[in-house]
Amino acid sequence: MQHADALADIATPAILLDRRRLEANCARMSARAASAGVRLRPHLKTAKSAAVAALATAGQFGGITVSTLAELAYFFEAGFTDLTYAVGIVPSKLPAIHRLLARGARIQVVVDSVQGVEAIAGRQAGQPPLRVLIEIDCGGHRAGVAPDSAALLDIARRIGAAPGLALEGVLTHAGHAYHAQDGQARTAIALQERDAALLAAQRLREAGFAVPVVSIGSTPTALTDIPLDGITEIRPGVYVFFDLSQARLGVCSTDDIAVSVLATVIGHQAGHLLVDAGALALSKDISANEYDAAIGYGLVCDEQGQLIDGLHVADVHQEHGFLKTAAGALPYARLPVGSRVRILPNHACMTVAPYRQYLVPDGAGGIEAWDKTGGW
Amino acid sequence: MQHADALADIATPAILLDRRRLEANCARMSARAASAGVRLRPHLKTAKSAAVAALATAGQFGGITVSTLAELAYFFEAGFTDLTYAVGIVPSKLPAIHRLLARGARIQVVVDSVQGVEAIAGRQAGQPPLRVLIEIDCGGHRAGVAPDSAALLDIARRIGAAPGLALEGVLTHAGHAYHAQDGQARTAIALQERDAALLAAQRLREAGFAVPVVSIGSTPTALTDIPLDGITEIRPGVYVFFDLSQARLGVCSTDDIAVSVLATVIGHQAGHLLVDAGALALSKDISANEYDAAIGYGLVCDEQGQLIDGLHVADVHQEHGFLKTAAGALPYARLPVGSRVRILPNHACMTVAPYRQYLVPDGAGGIEAWDKTGGW
Repeated sequence: MQHADALADIATPAILLDRRRLEANCARMSARAASAGVRLRPHLKTAKSAAVAALATAGQFGGITVSTLAELAYFFEAGFTDLTYAVGIVPSKLPAIHRLLARGARIQVVVDSVQGVEAIAGRQAGQPPLRVLIEIDCGGHRAGVAPDSAALLDIARRIGAAPGLALEGVLTHAGHAYHAQDGQARTAIALQERDAALLAAQRLREAGFAVPVVSIGSTPTALTDIPLDGITEIRPGVYVFFDLSQARLGVCSTDDIAVSVLATVIGHQAGHLLVDAGALALSKDISANEYDAAIGYGLVCDEQGQLIDGLHVADVHQEHGFLKTAAGALPYARLPVGSRVRILPNHACMTVAPYRQYLVPDGAGGIEAWDKTGGW
Repeated sequence: MQHADALADIATPAILLDRRRLEANCARMSARAASAGVRLRPHLKTAKSAAVAALATAGQFGGITVSTLAELAYFFEAGFTDLTYAVGIVPSKLPAIHRLLARGARIQVVVDSVQGVEAIAGRQAGQPPLRVLIEIDCGGHRAGVAPDSAALLDIARRIGAAPGLALEGVLTHAGHAYHAQDGQARTAIALQERDAALLAAQRLREAGFAVPVVSIGSTPTALTDIPLDGITEIRPGVYVFFDLSQARLGVCSTDDIAVSVLATVIGHQAGHLLVDAGALALSKDISANEYDAAIGYGLVCDEQGQLIDGLHVADVHQEHGFLKTAAGALPYARLPVGSRVRILPNHACMTVAPYRQYLVPDGAGGIEAWDKTGGW
């Protein structure tokens, strides 16, 4: 970590990270994992930062989840050696994984078809084992096999027959929880996620397979209070930062959101204020608009982080954002050209991805720069 | 430039760049600039690559346009010393610009208000001059002053009164040309862009100001055949790569698109093929859907670059893309798990931004890696 300039000198756009909120969010998920009796393997595809990973794994067993080879290498170099790469594995990604295995990494990969197992089954015995999780579809219909399918057992048998592969367990992710319209629907999806994983594990065990890992997780489903007996780990990710989508889901409040995009007002027009944070700096994700159309590409706070009533990013071009109000006059006087705003993200995973660092005010006028990875 | 592995070994997602198409696209824009009698100052916010900039400026005067401080520094280090930073300037960006001016850069910045000029007017005489372009609104209503406004002359006077600032001319950008519904509408916007810049320049000259630069440009307006008498330069950007949005506008064909996202099929589901290129690898830009809803997040080609009829990226999660067909059966047999596809981008500027390099097949089985910049 190195110190950046004072806040007023920072060239925009930049990501500000509120350490106190980050720590509170991490503590909340740790408490949930502890009370449910499961291990927490945070998904670092959101933060892509070793410093954030250190806070998210504090007091935990140290395993993490990643979604790219770049994250796998970055976190291994930062000392995280137990890594689940949670995107379906294909042969072109094995050389990078083999290199880390040879250096002592413990890596779990995921498959959801016999074809997928066969594509990676050519490894030689004697190499460090490649641990394989079978991905289960718990209702989101993105990836995975149905927990009650014949394919589940076929996949397990094919893994068992492959030298160098070791069946580690099952993994599922209730991505459809992001679209739950209320708390009741969210809890129903959490139950669906849990029960799909439990059913798959039970069927594999009945067929004679050991299933040490039964892994579930998304932030909205992890933060329900359903019992998790039989589940071994959860893999939520966006909770470290939260965002407007999570706030609209009722999983957090806007006061919990730990990241914001610092931007500068670069122009006053008749119908909008123009800022230097656009489609790349905010992403074009508009997921929070599923709940409230007056969010656009993000809600706007003043430089201190106080929401400005109704002000939102109504449109974006590559490096330009258009601030408008849902109703009422635009705050030209409050936000002169050159003044700063902070924009709360719709979907933190998307917004923070292109930045090279987080700027973390230390509370004493200084700012730490926390590095992060990106790309693939 | 360094050599990457052979195409089959490349871990996906990755950006493939077709050098022959890139060169043809650059030659086409150079020919247009030559026939219109204007200088070509390509906007490198699209490619963010010195190797692409070298091709785009071949035979030209060498000036380029950029949209971030990261691009400004990257291209200066790569030998491009005449740079227009085409996003409204604010004080926090001046230190980085001063450092480059002191090292011999020629930098033009843009303003569109008296307030904006006053924010940067505190520079001391004796420093290298900061050249200022007044941004004109030619109808897109993003930024800029109206060419017939009193504010135009007020801004020029305020620049003239500021030691260290030098009025360089006027600049406009017809971003609204991206939404022209046909060639006639596109030509009408091109005329609007040209005439707004000419009117502003004329009024400034009548008021006694020298206006050496009259700068316009966007890819759709640059590639009309209207006369450009009185215009001194054009600043198109996306033409180096083109994309589905430009193809739908009629500015190019899909065979001109020079970049594609190489992705791997990681799963077969009942309703889709899953690939490892999602919201980050493709961007969530769906601009081409303005013309045809069956584009989604991009059109899908086989590994050789041939479009697969109707196959498109219908949905994206962070690192997952869902391939569906507009009608008819999914090509499971043609695209087994582990096979490769190439995805044509909706909006190349957005899609290529997060990548750290372009992979450029050399036509002889090798692949060059061309570096690029990103972030801010």
